[in-house]
Amino acid sequence: MAYTSELSLKEIRRDLHAYPEAGWKEFRTTALVAEELEEQGFTVHLGADAVETSERLGVPSEDEIQEAKRRIQDTGCSERYLDRIGDVTGIVAEKTYGSGAGPTVGVRVDMDALERVEASEKEHRPAREGFNSRHPGVMHACGHDGHTTIGIGIARELDANGGFDGHLKLFFQPAEEGGRGGYPMSKTGHLEDIDHFLALHLGLDNETGKVIAAYERPLSNAKLDVTFIGEGAHAGKAPNQGRNALQAATTAIQNVYAIPRHEDGATRINVGQVYSPNAQNVIAEEAQMRVEVRGETADLNEYMLAKVHRIIEHAAGMHDVECETALYGKTTTFQSDSSLVDIVVQAANSVEDVEMVVDREDLGASEDASYLINEVQKNGGKATYVGIGASNPYGHHTSRFDIDEDALPLGVNVLSKTIRQL
Amino acid sequence: MAYTSELSLKEIRRDLHAYPEAGWKEFRTTALVAEELEEQGFTVHLGADAVETSERLGVPSEDEIQEAKRRIQDTGCSERYLDRIGDVTGIVAEKTYGSGAGPTVGVRVDMDALERVEASEKEHRPAREGFNSRHPGVMHACGHDGHTTIGIGIARELDANGGFDGHLKLFFQPAEEGGRGGYPMSKTGHLEDIDHFLALHLGLDNETGKVIAAYERPLSNAKLDVTFIGEGAHAGKAPNQGRNALQAATTAIQNVYAIPRHEDGATRINVGQVYSPNAQNVIAEEAQMRVEVRGETADLNEYMLAKVHRIIEHAAGMHDVECETALYGKTTTFQSDSSLVDIVVQAANSVEDVEMVVDREDLGASEDASYLINEVQKNGGKATYVGIGASNPYGHHTSRFDIDEDALPLGVNVLSKTIRQL
Amino acid sequence: MAYTSELSLKEIRRDLHAYPEAGWKEFRTTALVAEELEEQGFTVHLGADAVETSERLGVPSEDEIQEAKRRIQDTGCSERYLDRIGDVTGIVAEKTYGSGAGPTVGVRVDMDALERVEASEKEHRPAREGFNSRHPGVMHACGHDGHTTIGIGIARELDANGGFDGHLKLFFQPAEEGGRGGYPMSKTGHLEDIDHFLALHLGLDNETGKVIAAYERPLSNAKLDVTFIGEGAHAGKAPNQGRNALQAATTAIQNVYAIPRHEDGATRINVGQVYSPNAQNVIAEEAQMRVEVRGETADLNEYMLAKVHRIIEHAAGMHDVECETALYGKTTTFQSDSSLVDIVVQAANSVEDVEMVVDREDLGASEDASYLINEVQKNGGKATYVGIGASNPYGHHTSRFDIDEDALPLGVNVLSKTIRQL
Amino acid sequence: MAYTSELSLKEIRRDLHAYPEAGWKEFRTTALVAEELEEQGFTVHLGADAVETSERLGVPSEDEIQEAKRRIQDTGCSERYLDRIGDVTGIVAEKTYGSGAGPTVGVRVDMDALERVEASEKEHRPAREGFNSRHPGVMHACGHDGHTTIGIGIARELDANGGFDGHLKLFFQPAEEGGRGGYPMSKTGHLEDIDHFLALHLGLDNETGKVIAAYERPLSNAKLDVTFIGEGAHAGKAPNQGRNALQAATTAIQNVYAIPRHEDGATRINVGQVYSPNAQNVIAEEAQMRVEVRGETADLNEYMLAKVHRIIEHAAGMHDVECETALYGKTTTFQSDSSLVDIVVQAANSVEDVEMVVDREDLGASEDASYLINEVQKNGGKATYVGIGASNPYGHHTSRFDIDEDALPLGVNVLSKTIRQL
Repeated sequence: MAYTSELSLKEIRRDLHAYPEAGWKEFRTTALVAEELEEQGFTVHLGADAVETSERLGVPSEDEIQEAKRRIQDTGCSERYLDRIGDVTGIVAEKTYGSGAGPTVGVRVDMDALERVEASEKEHRPAREGFNSRHPGVMHACGHDGHTTIGIGIARELDANGGFDGHLKLFFQPAEEGGRGGYPMSKTGHLEDIDHFLALHLGLDNETGKVIAAYERPLSNAKLDVTFIGEGAHAGKAPNQGRNALQAATTAIQNVYAIPRHEDGATRINVGQVYSPNAQNVIAEEAQMRVEVRGETADLNEYMLAKVHRIIEHAAGMHDVECETALYGKTTTFQSDSSLVDIVVQAANSVEDVEMVVDREDLGASEDASYLINEVQKNGGKATYVGIGASNPYGHHTSRFDIDEDALPLGVNVLSKTIRQL
Repeated sequence: MAYTSELSLKEIRRDLHAYPEAGWKEFRTTALVAEELEEQGFTVHLGADAVETSERLGVPSEDEIQEAKRRIQDTGCSERYLDRIGDVTGIVAEKTYGSGAGPTVGVRVDMDALERVEASEKEHRPAREGFNSRHPGVMHACGHDGHTTIGIGIARELDANGGFDGHLKLFFQPAEEGGRGGYPMSKTGHLEDIDHFLALHLGLDNETGKVIAAYERPLSNAKLDVTFIGEGAHAGKAPNQGRNALQAATTAIQNVYAIPRHEDGATRINVGQVYSPNAQNVIAEEAQMRVEVRGETADLNEYMLAKVHRIIEHAAGMHDVECETALYGKTTTFQSDSSLVDIVVQAANSVEDVEMVVDREDLGASEDASYLINEVQKNGGKATYVGIGASNPYGHHTSRFDIDEDALPLGVNVLSKTIRQL
Repeated sequence: MAYTSELSLKEIRRDLHAYPEAGWKEFRTTALVAEELEEQGFTVHLGADAVETSERLGVPSEDEIQEAKRRIQDTGCSERYLDRIGDVTGIVAEKTYGSGAGPTVGVRVDMDALERVEASEKEHRPAREGFNSRHPGVMHACGHDGHTTIGIGIARELDANGGFDGHLKLFFQPAEEGGRGGYPMSKTGHLEDIDHFLALHLGLDNETGKVIAAYERPLSNAKLDVTFIGEGAHAGKAPNQGRNALQAATTAIQNVYAIPRHEDGATRINVGQVYSPNAQNVIAEEAQMRVEVRGETADLNEYMLAKVHRIIEHAAGMHDVECETALYGKTTTFQSDSSLVDIVVQAANSVEDVEMVVDREDLGASEDASYLINEVQKNGGKATYVGIGASNPYGHHTSRFDIDEDALPLGVNVLSKTIRQL
Repeated sequence: MAYTSELSLKEIRRDLHAYPEAGWKEFRTTALVAEELEEQGFTVHLGADAVETSERLGVPSEDEIQEAKRRIQDTGCSERYLDRIGDVTGIVAEKTYGSGAGPTVGVRVDMDALERVEASEKEHRPAREGFNSRHPGVMHACGHDGHTTIGIGIARELDANGGFDGHLKLFFQPAEEGGRGGYPMSKTGHLEDIDHFLALHLGLDNETGKVIAAYERPLSNAKLDVTFIGEGAHAGKAPNQGRNALQAATTAIQNVYAIPRHEDGATRINVGQVYSPNAQNVIAEEAQMRVEVRGETADLNEYMLAKVHRIIEHAAGMHDVECETALYGKTTTFQSDSSLVDIVVQAANSVEDVEMVVDREDLGASEDASYLINEVQKNGGKATYVGIGASNPYGHHTSRFDIDEDALPLGVNVLSKTIRQL
């Protein structure tokens, strides 16, 4: 019997919180979810059946992947499922309810954690109640532990209480942080026949009891990992013999910040994770950085990305250094479909403990569910991205982030009721 | 009879001073010198016979050339010679003395003036005595009027007083300023058979009566005219539609100043004449600049020039603009030959009014006689570059520069005596 | 009798077109308008009574001012008025109609031309019909000749046909180009009692017969003239002795383009008129540039301007050079008042030959009538900025710009009718 | 009895090699040397008596210091000495020989290792013979283990074989790497009465058997740790709310590389250890870097350092970020005294196994013994810096660096003989 099947939703969320797994390393999470859903009668697609592996972005090194798998031995997940997963995390699970005559509904939740240290103060409930991270330097600081739990909860709820006569597909997406898993999951074919598609996010500065039926219009986003590779030389004896990767990087950085503003709308540019570790007496052999661009539209994002590529290439050429770039992640933008939004509003209003339902709101952040939503809409389906309030005093991505667990059943109910009304 | 043949050396110098002609525009000067030397029995090579025209650097526009010719009508120079000159200034004149059994001696003087406004205060002798520039914005501010005069003076002196039994070649070089005329003159073949070669400069902070037998080791130098050509766009409405030539130029400028210092010796870099004239509300369509590099050796100069080319090309590429470069001028370096230097020292010491003779000194400035000297030395000849002191309180290239005319006969005598002793 | 009083509106426009005067040099225009209006019974304020002189921006040098006055002698304008004008152009003229019991209405037109060469081809009507610019390098390329004419036309129309019972103030603003005259005119006190305020612009890509009742929401704008003053030094002999104004300028330019985008809306930045004229072998003593910033709101504009100031100051400090900045011009933004817009719509619809009336449109360009509009609104008055279509195949600010003179009576009528309906 | 006193010089060197300690962490080395020398009758100055603590440069954090002390427990050094040392490493030891009537002679050796991983291949003798580093990431890769050993060897030799009638001061300097310990040791007063001063270095690409009596004229050098402290902000939502430390750093880096070349001689500039670790979606709160400047003279070095300070300060100001700088290390230059050099030449020539003695050579690298040498010379003493050849196939600072231990007695003998001849 599945490890999770004896646990309540709250217990599942706490178990996931205690074993956070960063993007493309969600092996334990994938195994637990897959086992529980197969017990419930779902057909479960894993590995290359859940994610178009050739399209994966920002994948950790082979060593990191193996270390992630090693680390979770003896933590309650099934070896059998780990074998089936292989090296690629992510699940698509599907099940037909009743006659199956009704619509095909997709629900997407994400599973990955962040690479940051969790707070250990007793004021932080996970620490106080003993479910804080067992994986040093990794933390569920964005509520995806809750999202995964809600995914399981929806399956349990429809199983237990019926009322849906159609086909359900649950997408447990890996590597949402950085926008790395949405795109390859959107390329699998599982979205082709979806009539209605629901994604969700907990929190986002909304108190428990508030529901946003349609978060939409996030900025499009792309992240580029850049490495300049020059040649070292003694900076005192023969600076001319070097090829300076740092000068290339600084020229690139100065110029990417200066990309022309665009007439069509807002754009963004930023650079982070800049490292040029050479000793001060050696001409820099290497400089790394990660560049992020955004645009109000996908086109604006592409405009920025093309400019960045051009600048980087020529900054390298200018200093006679090599340059390698790799897309680390990307997201696009979307708008929710009114017909579906109306149903979510209705459903949410009928849920006990929901106190406030908002129609539509702009989603400031970036989100790679955008690719799944675009794919569904391209195929004629309807989609929306639902916000489920979850009180907590500390912001997303901080070391003391937590979610109000009362939001879990609330999320399950809003989405289950929506599914039943479709 | 030649216009100049009735004039004393001092009068010739003052006549030249009054009609200064900048590089590649020395039409009147060339005509006067050519006429006088032909009267003295020299064979005179003009135009493409004096200068390898395809190698000329920093040539003014056709309009400027024609305007320079128009301006000097009715100023005493012969139409016939102007016709022979065509559009290319410069003279090589040769004559055999005595049996011609002795060595072939070359003497190089330069003829061009600078583009700057001459002082009009009465404290400035040319203004006080009425021989200041008739060509507004052009001025003999580096003593080349004196150099040309000394060239004529040597011819007169050897003619008048004999004592030389060999072949004399006089090189009246155009466009020394900027290093534009030396290189193409060195490519003509006239230097192939030179046994001894003398170049000279007046002043250089030396008082009248002082002679430096060998100025040498100038920095090599190259000047590059650069134009970035982008595309305008309204900076308020659609900055993204432009391709910004100014951003390319500023990126280039910042990076050329940062070219790595070289282990092998001193290098220099500077940028001048930067113009980006677009209105502030238009993305810059164009930006121009002139870059100058120098090196203690010709190789170091080439190192700098290659770096500049690379930086400019990629600064243009980075901002998607076109780039045109043209070599505006160049000089190289040289060392004087001891055997010849010794003879100059002897000769100078025997000249009345010479009070101090210095063996060798480093020439801080750049000088394109270097190309003629290199060519002579390559062919087995000996060469030196002689400094003839000429007191004046104001520096070279300033609006109140003047030369002590007592230095003229002194220069004639030092070089004539040297020629006789060869 | 006034020179203009015998001329038709079309003749006045052509006369003004033939004698274009750039910002702060509108001496002839001011004199002609003043004389005509005094003949019509207006009280005319000139010089420091029309413009707050201490607040003037982008004022030409004293020499340029005097040359502008010299140039127009014997061109038909009255010496007496030129004396009254002194050195400061601009007019505020006021007159009470009927009992004066009605509202105080302000109308603003601008008078200045642009510094550019007018086309001389016969296809260009001003050239063909002989009223092209007599002032080489100056041209009415934005239609202000027409605006001034319409200002006179409104006075003539209300005089001739009555129907207005109130107080009229006509603002003939100098130096609109660059945003230099609006701010100082807004500081004079003449706007304190205005109940309704109308500004206007011809053309703007609208065909004759189209009226936009409210152009609004231009980008705020500021232009800064910047001079970096360093110290020259020989770039070959002693580059270290210089203080490089060009390096300061390029550092500033690179960094102003990289000012962070702002969360509150669109911003713009551009640099033009960059000059660093030093010879390439001299460390740059001076570098000039003009920086322009814009913002969707006045606050965004101020954000950009403050960043520019900070960057420039520290770019200078970084290279140990001095820095002088002068605000060359500025504009702000505004929204039109609905009550007044409605009346303009009504009035325009009642004018024969008006074929299309648009309610509101965003004004892409910047406009310093904004300061007058803001001042009126601050004091409780209502304002709008009216677009009067005027067909022409060539864009504003081009050498072949022209206006369809049929738009002149149309503009007079739309505004006069509006005034009568207030 | 001292741990080292039973060991041969070769064994001491191997023991030190096995326990390498980086700059300011030489606790074990200091304790062992101090104990041995006290046993030999030296008066030993430790801690603040050996180094002017307030002038120390590049001191590790308190945590690192304590960890360095913890690590060496139970490695053979005396607790008693560790207590006397406190937190400040370095030794000055002095002893009078014979009547003490002769000169006061100083000998300086350095003790610190480098932070790098030692090779573990069997081809690397320390690995093969088991004396490779027990401190992971620390390695004697510059031969200071040998220098310290020679210092002890000289004391043993003079003790054993006599022949010196004067006062000997041994300076065991900490933190030579980076130029951090020389300056504070030069400020202690121990150098005031030195008549003759000898410093030494093994290897430097010289084979065993070769001696350079005077290495001299190293480039002056200074290293500056720079931290820019800005303010984070979400790069997508509100980039304007940040203060970007990375933009400050890149502006600084571009401009320090572009510091004007100096007429007086060679200068160098380089930047290393650049870290701006912010996530790509956060405006950089922090950027660190280490800047190194060099100059052919101390003045040129100061010229560069002053320029760097100015640039950094204004790069910070330009982007409204804070900036902290700390001198990480510095060295100066020196020339050796002929009288002393002659004696070293004589002495070296008399040592068996010395095959080649070179008079003087330029020391390409930087060296902070320069401060001690300058101090001695300032007080009227004579000084030189002696090179002792030590064959090894791999370069200094590489992971396979090693020294030929035959050079140890050779170094002891050259210096001891020199001391006896003084």
